[in-house]
Amino acid sequence: MRVGILGGGQLGRMLALAGYPLGLRFRFLDPSPDASGGQLAGLVIAAYDDAAAIDRFVEGLDVATYEFENVPAETAEHLGRHVPVLPPREALDTAQDRLVEKECFRALDIPTAPFAAIDERSDLDPAIERIGLPAVLKTRRLGYDGKGQRVLQDLDDVQRAWSDLGGVPLILEGFIDFDREVSIIAVRGRDGRVAFYPLIENQHRQGILRLSTAPAPGTDERLQALAERHAARVLDALDYVGILAIEFFQTGDRLVANEMAPRVHNSGHWTIEGAETSQFENHLRAICGFPLGSTAPRGHSIMFNLIGAAPDVNAVLAIRGAHLHLYAKEPRPGRKIGHITIRADDAETAAERLEQLRQAIG
Amino acid sequence: MRVGILGGGQLGRMLALAGYPLGLRFRFLDPSPDASGGQLAGLVIAAYDDAAAIDRFVEGLDVATYEFENVPAETAEHLGRHVPVLPPREALDTAQDRLVEKECFRALDIPTAPFAAIDERSDLDPAIERIGLPAVLKTRRLGYDGKGQRVLQDLDDVQRAWSDLGGVPLILEGFIDFDREVSIIAVRGRDGRVAFYPLIENQHRQGILRLSTAPAPGTDERLQALAERHAARVLDALDYVGILAIEFFQTGDRLVANEMAPRVHNSGHWTIEGAETSQFENHLRAICGFPLGSTAPRGHSIMFNLIGAAPDVNAVLAIRGAHLHLYAKEPRPGRKIGHITIRADDAETAAERLEQLRQAIG
Repeated sequence: MRVGILGGGQLGRMLALAGYPLGLRFRFLDPSPDASGGQLAGLVIAAYDDAAAIDRFVEGLDVATYEFENVPAETAEHLGRHVPVLPPREALDTAQDRLVEKECFRALDIPTAPFAAIDERSDLDPAIERIGLPAVLKTRRLGYDGKGQRVLQDLDDVQRAWSDLGGVPLILEGFIDFDREVSIIAVRGRDGRVAFYPLIENQHRQGILRLSTAPAPGTDERLQALAERHAARVLDALDYVGILAIEFFQTGDRLVANEMAPRVHNSGHWTIEGAETSQFENHLRAICGFPLGSTAPRGHSIMFNLIGAAPDVNAVLAIRGAHLHLYAKEPRPGRKIGHITIRADDAETAAERLEQLRQAIG
Repeated sequence: MRVGILGGGQLGRMLALAGYPLGLRFRFLDPSPDASGGQLAGLVIAAYDDAAAIDRFVEGLDVATYEFENVPAETAEHLGRHVPVLPPREALDTAQDRLVEKECFRALDIPTAPFAAIDERSDLDPAIERIGLPAVLKTRRLGYDGKGQRVLQDLDDVQRAWSDLGGVPLILEGFIDFDREVSIIAVRGRDGRVAFYPLIENQHRQGILRLSTAPAPGTDERLQALAERHAARVLDALDYVGILAIEFFQTGDRLVANEMAPRVHNSGHWTIEGAETSQFENHLRAICGFPLGSTAPRGHSIMFNLIGAAPDVNAVLAIRGAHLHLYAKEPRPGRKIGHITIRADDAETAAERLEQLRQAIG
């Protein structure tokens, strides 16, 4: 089978690396000639709304998928006339818009922060009145890694936040005081079967994921079951096919859904070494209609994002159980250029190795 | 770094899949336009002795390696003038010729079957006299997967074997009555450090490897240590860099060396899922001068070669812990077109899953 991937960055690249052993072939569409997926599969270089390029891209494909949720609706529509596009259109529509996403969670009885649509300046004050401060003002579309959002600590912040973000549809979300952030990576096959990886504990800094630990320490079966119930509801409601990630705020034994990503997810990269089947392989198994693979963890994993600068490869590889993944991207401040997964048979050893890694690469 | 690989078959393909995450790039040289490595890296299509093509192939490479030991000496020589070629030339010279190989083992005090060079028909009778029957007559060069050899059970077989094989340099080897066949996968870095995977039990049929089980059941520490001592001697004597495989016949607590392969090896494919670092990654780490990765096993693995015909992918992927590796090769009788590694946390579960697999794919 031939799989087309919209986006030729690291997620597409890791999908292809996982899929070649299954006998799959790949083609990427990406506006950048430097998209590093192009090193290991055909790359159509064009804008995502270039209809002629999409016609070239789709030629001979059996299925298409994407590595980012901001696929233009017309592109998904156009592609979908020629080939199955999975995860399905409804998942894109939901995940692209923070308001629709929150409404989806609410309709499925999954707790969220209080929220309000902010279309005009005049919507803001009554929303603050209702939700309270602190709160977060976010663009409904195209935000990622902390971009397109402003924290409102008090009323003095309101006008500046509006000046920065106003003019596009916004959402105001109540601030959640949480113990920690966790995510679940779920997968649903074409036949409707589902599987879930163990909950992951995530640490962000400046809006960017830094560290994921899996299985999330101190997680009991009830919390895992709760996360799975929430994810299963979303999967079924959207008639979903592929990997879906949902990020939660955890407070005690309560999970509050923050956002979803209808694609393989940074917090699931540890599954390459740390699970029986990686999220990349399971995404491909799902969209190609194959049986899903086991999501059982293999030992304990800590994933460490490489942001902005390349590490000393020799120093990294000298750490026992350290698995390096470079994305062949030019380093730039704030840019994810790779990750390292530390795997060990027990959590203590994994933590020790992480400490060694931190000392080795500064 | 950019790595050139002579040969674009499954071994080269799996090297590239293991190396992209390390930030490496790849280029293959292969006479066949269908070489499946070409799906995931640049492919120079040319004969291995085509000097102009080798000049194109070598352009911009940092290091070159090979996926088969029958690289023509002139090619290695020519390449070596432009770029380091690893494993080193002496390893190729040794492994290409069964007589030189056996003499190497003997010089290093590693037990082998009794053997004799057979250059002419008149060498054969005195050799049989000395070595006894049964024995195996083999071409010194270019044999693989049981090709280029004849078993001599009694004197009646001698003339036919000579008619089939005579005319090129041959070797007569005494027949070893063994309990089982095992192999060791060893690796040596540019800095001379070595590491060893656990011994592997191999089952051949019609000269082709069918099944590898790792760690080899019932192996005690002494046998592992003995295999490592033998392998270490070869690695050091050849000033070796990269993965080296040595196949042994085991009788009781004795190991008799059969042959070596100066490359990643079919009996090491289980390391992709079954070891902390795969043989493919460790080969690349070695030739690129990076630190070696841990060779510790992760649970128990059984590797099952797919020979001649493609399996039902859905049936394979439905088996828990089954990892499919297809090589994108046209099925032909006797041709290795893929492998499946069954991994489990204990040997019994791995064996059960193998049984399920056998029932599923017939």
